[in-house]
Parts: sequence; C-alpha cells; structure tokens
Amino acid sequence: MSIVVVGSVAFDTVETPHGKVENVVAGAATYFALSASYFTNVRVVGVVGEDFGPEQEALFLGRGIDIRGIEHAPGKSFHWKGEYTGAMNEAKTLDTQLNVFAAFEPKIPQEYEDSEYLFLANIDPKLQLQVRQQMPKVKMVCGDTMNYWIADHREALTNVLKELDVLLINDGEARMLSGMHNIVKASEKILAMGPKSLVIKHGEHGATAFFGENSFSSEHKLSRPFRAPTLPLAELVDPTGAGDSFAGGFYGYIASQPELTPAVFRRALFYGGVMGSFACESFGTERVASLRRNEIEERFEIFREISHLEYDKLKEQETA
Amino acid sequence: MSIVVVGSVAFDTVETPHGKVENVVAGAATYFALSASYFTNVRVVGVVGEDFGPEQEALFLGRGIDIRGIEHAPGKSFHWKGEYTGAMNEAKTLDTQLNVFAAFEPKIPQEYEDSEYLFLANIDPKLQLQVRQQMPKVKMVCGDTMNYWIADHREALTNVLKELDVLLINDGEARMLSGMHNIVKASEKILAMGPKSLVIKHGEHGATAFFGENSFSSEHKLSRPFRAPTLPLAELVDPTGAGDSFAGGFYGYIASQPELTPAVFRRALFYGGVMGSFACESFGTERVASLRRNEIEERFEIFREISHLEYDKLKEQETA
Repeated sequence: MSIVVVGSVAFDTVETPHGKVENVVAGAATYFALSASYFTNVRVVGVVGEDFGPEQEALFLGRGIDIRGIEHAPGKSFHWKGEYTGAMNEAKTLDTQLNVFAAFEPKIPQEYEDSEYLFLANIDPKLQLQVRQQMPKVKMVCGDTMNYWIADHREALTNVLKELDVLLINDGEARMLSGMHNIVKASEKILAMGPKSLVIKHGEHGATAFFGENSFSSEHKLSRPFRAPTLPLAELVDPTGAGDSFAGGFYGYIASQPELTPAVFRRALFYGGVMGSFACESFGTERVASLRRNEIEERFEIFREISHLEYDKLKEQETA
Repeated sequence: MSIVVVGSVAFDTVETPHGKVENVVAGAATYFALSASYFTNVRVVGVVGEDFGPEQEALFLGRGIDIRGIEHAPGKSFHWKGEYTGAMNEAKTLDTQLNVFAAFEPKIPQEYEDSEYLFLANIDPKLQLQVRQQMPKVKMVCGDTMNYWIADHREALTNVLKELDVLLINDGEARMLSGMHNIVKASEKILAMGPKSLVIKHGEHGATAFFGENSFSSEHKLSRPFRAPTLPLAELVDPTGAGDSFAGGFYGYIASQPELTPAVFRRALFYGGVMGSFACESFGTERVASLRRNEIEERFEIFREISHLEYDKLKEQETA
C-alpha cells in the first residue's frame, strides 16, 4: 500500500557534541519517507528550490521513493540550522530560512490519488487540512505538529485533529496542547479533540499509545495504553529527524499490513522506536537512508528481548 | 526466604496537590518492608523513639513483618516534612529532624542471622557497610543510596558498592554517581564501581536494568539491558516511598523464588513497578499496607498487557 507524506524537504546544518554537518538533505518529509520506504511505497509532496537537483533526488530514488509530488520552485530550498548541546534533548534553532517553503501550496499529483495512507508531517495546519481535503478517499490519516502551531494556530490545528486516525507528538507538545502535565490526563483531553488514537513519544524513554472511544477499530478497540521501549544508546550522534523516522517506521509498517489490528499497532510502535533509534546514530539521514532490512529486523528483535518477560520462552517456541 | 532490611522508620508530614497528611508512619525501611511482605518474610532493623508504640507497630505486625530488630531509644523518632508541587517529580524537604536516627548503630538480632537476603536502604554508607559485615552469610545484597551520600560520602559509598549484587537508584542519582549524562555510559561507570547489576528507576517512565561483567550468575549472564514499564497513572496522590516500594516488590519477589534467573530478574522488575505504582495512589503507606495479593497479580498482568507485543497470543496459550 502507498503512503503519501506531505512536509518539509530541506537542507540542514547541524552541530552536536559529536561533530557538524552542513547543508545535508533533511526535513520531516525526507526522514519520514526514507524510514517508511523499508516497509511500503512512499510518495512525497513538498517543495524545493533550484539548489535541489539530481544529486539530492538520488537520496530518495535510491530508496525507491516517488518524488513526482516534489515541486521545484524558483529560489532556494528551506534551510534550517540548529545545534544540540548537553543532554541533547532539544535542538536549539540557530537559523531558519523558509525560502520556497514560505509560499508552499501542496498539490497532490494525479498519480498519487489511489494512495490509501496519508501522513501530514509537521507543517502549517491549514496546509495539512488542504491536503486532507484533496485526498478524501484515503483510509487512514496520521499527523504530527509542533509547539509553534499549538501556540499560535490552534483553531486551524483543531480542524486537523478531527481528521486524524493517529496523532504523533512528544511529551512537551502533548502537555502544551492539552494544558495538562499528567500524561494520562493530557491524553484524555487530546483524544477528546478528535484523533482516534494518540502516540506520545518520550525520547529516550520510548513511546506510549493511548486509544480513544472511537479508536481505530471498534472490533479491536483498546482501552489500555501501550508502552513501547527504546534502545538505550551510548552515543546520540544527532537526534535530528528521530521523531519523523519514528513516524515513518510506525506508519510504514501499518501500511504494509493487510489490516490494522491491536497486534499490528503494537508492532508498529516497536518499528517506530527501531527507526528512531537508527536515526540518532548518525548525522542527517546517513543511517536511515542506508539500512538493510535485516538490520531493522535484528533491532526489532532486540526491542522485544529488552522488554518482554517471556523472551527466552518465546524464542524457544519459535525455534522448536 | 527472609529479607533483612536496614533503614529509616520515620514519621512523615507530606503535602501534595491532593492534600496533606501529618505524622504518618513512613521511612524507607517501612515502605520496603510493607511492599516486600506480600512476597516473602521481612525483618526490619531500625531505630525509633518513645513516640513509636503499639499503634505504630501494628502497621508492621498486620503484615507479618518481624520488628524485633527495631530498637527503641529514648527521645523522638525521625521526622520528615516535605511537599510535592507541579510535576511532582521531586519532593521538596521542608524539615528533617533526625532525632534518635542521628545516633543509629544498626544491630542485627540473633534471630535474623539465618536471613539469606539483605537490603541496605538509603542510610549512611558507613552503616550500610557495618550491617553487611555483620551478615557475612547472606547470599544476596541489594542497596539504595541518595544524592547526599553520593556528593559528600563517596569513599564510604564506594566500599558499599563493591558489596552489592544490585544497586537500585534513580536517573538523577545515576548521573551524579557516574558524572555521565548518558544513561548507558552512566551504567558502565557505575557497574565498574562494583555492583554486579544496576537498576535505574525513571519515575513515570519505568526502570532499566543493566548487567555487568560479573552479573548475578555467569550461567545466566545478561549483556543487554532490560526495560520495565510503569502504569500511566492519572492521579499521583503522593509519590513518597514509591522507590522503596519498588525495591520491596523487586527484592521480595526475588527472595520468594528458588533461584535467580534472568526470567526471575525480569519479573522482579515488573513487580517493582507494580508496587511503586500502588505507592503513588495514596498518602503514606495506606495503599501499600492494605493490598490483597490478587490486586498485585492483576496489576502485574496489566503491566504485561501494556508492554508485550504478543499479549493476546500469550493469553490464548495460557487459557487453552
């Protein structure tokens, strides 16, 4: 099944305690697409400038990603510059040049119209809604957002939330959106805003999924939350794109399955964590763009090993 | 099997956004003992003053806890006063009156000498070491500590760490003890200080166990960490004693099992989280002192449900 992702395709300059990279192809849609590409077909909608040519396109084409929806506009691509220091929990933005992204009007190519899955990466909620309306036939919609839209574009965001099967955000965003510090109360308030389910990412502490009254399937309705781990990493080289890579692994796995069941949702959360952990291991998209599928499966297995009580027994049963 | 726990038996006055309690029986040894008492025999070593009489003893005796090792000294018992505000991540100490605890010299009653498990709750590492030396025949020693001892009593603490099978501390203590922010690197440094394994508690994000070169059993040596969840709670009534209750559930379960295997260690971490979550649901020891064993098993099952991919399948197999 195909996923359409709409979001930023950008050039990043990032410095962390481990080094620095300049003008590497990045952006939410890029990380998402690369990560999801190991699981399913991915189609990107975005905009780039004249500085984005065949060399940059190769990153996507090398992973079989459809980029017919990436519009080329006169001017420069979106550039972001940031740094991580200390605990590396949050990027400090040093410079943002929206460039062609400032006037972005997402257009869905006709070739994308049969896509069944839509991912609205972190962009202006007005644009997220426009895209959603251009794709009335998709069977599932997931989305992301960030503090900027929560603080200053709440009305538009509220309209998007009603359209979402799954909202994926982090702890800080969940608290800001709900006005509640307690994460259970925050989840209740957010689910009441419309999304059928909610995935809250806790950085190095994994992620928790919460399921609302109108969860993804009445037959498989889950009332309890589900907690997925992350792999404790000794080296966080560059956390940029970890959240988008998480989303790509999560949604890519869902789109690869015939039906969304609670078991599929759980495994998807694990694949999200797996892809997020890879993203942190290198600068930019380096690691996420060059994985082998068996590396992903091996790490999935490690996630299971470090979180499952009956791991030894499960392995015995599988090899018996 | 019997656990001897040495630590504080105190009166607490605690205020949280949910209310206030005054002069309730608390202290690390109390929470630990109550929590562990659902799994195994527990024997307490501590000191109390003249304000601690039959009414206070009933809390322990009601749970079958052996308090022959609680010394009665002239004067008042240890009193602690604290409050939790906002995110309730950390208590603010308003008043500490050590009273009889200031001159505490732990003595192990002869009746306790056949105990196989020793828990050194958070007290002066010099006293922890004295107790350890008084019990040379125990087969397992676990311990806790806190920022005060890490900062100002490092040499004495270093001697205790070499004696420990498991050190149980929280994120902040692990970072302070190791001088490393990254939790994997912190664990490596701490394991090199002596403890055979290390449990780092992450509050609302569960706990991670790390296993050293000399882990608890060469046969069952684990190299990978293990992550245990917590239950997302909508109401944190009073987090006081959650860490000690975690330790009691963890160690109580281990002491109840014939052998320490990786599977037992993992289940023990889950029971730790279970008991820690109960501790947060009421003021003082109210909830931890009045559980039914089936409530513990039900919550253990919820922990499994919210963290295990194959939960539905596991349930099917069990009921088949």
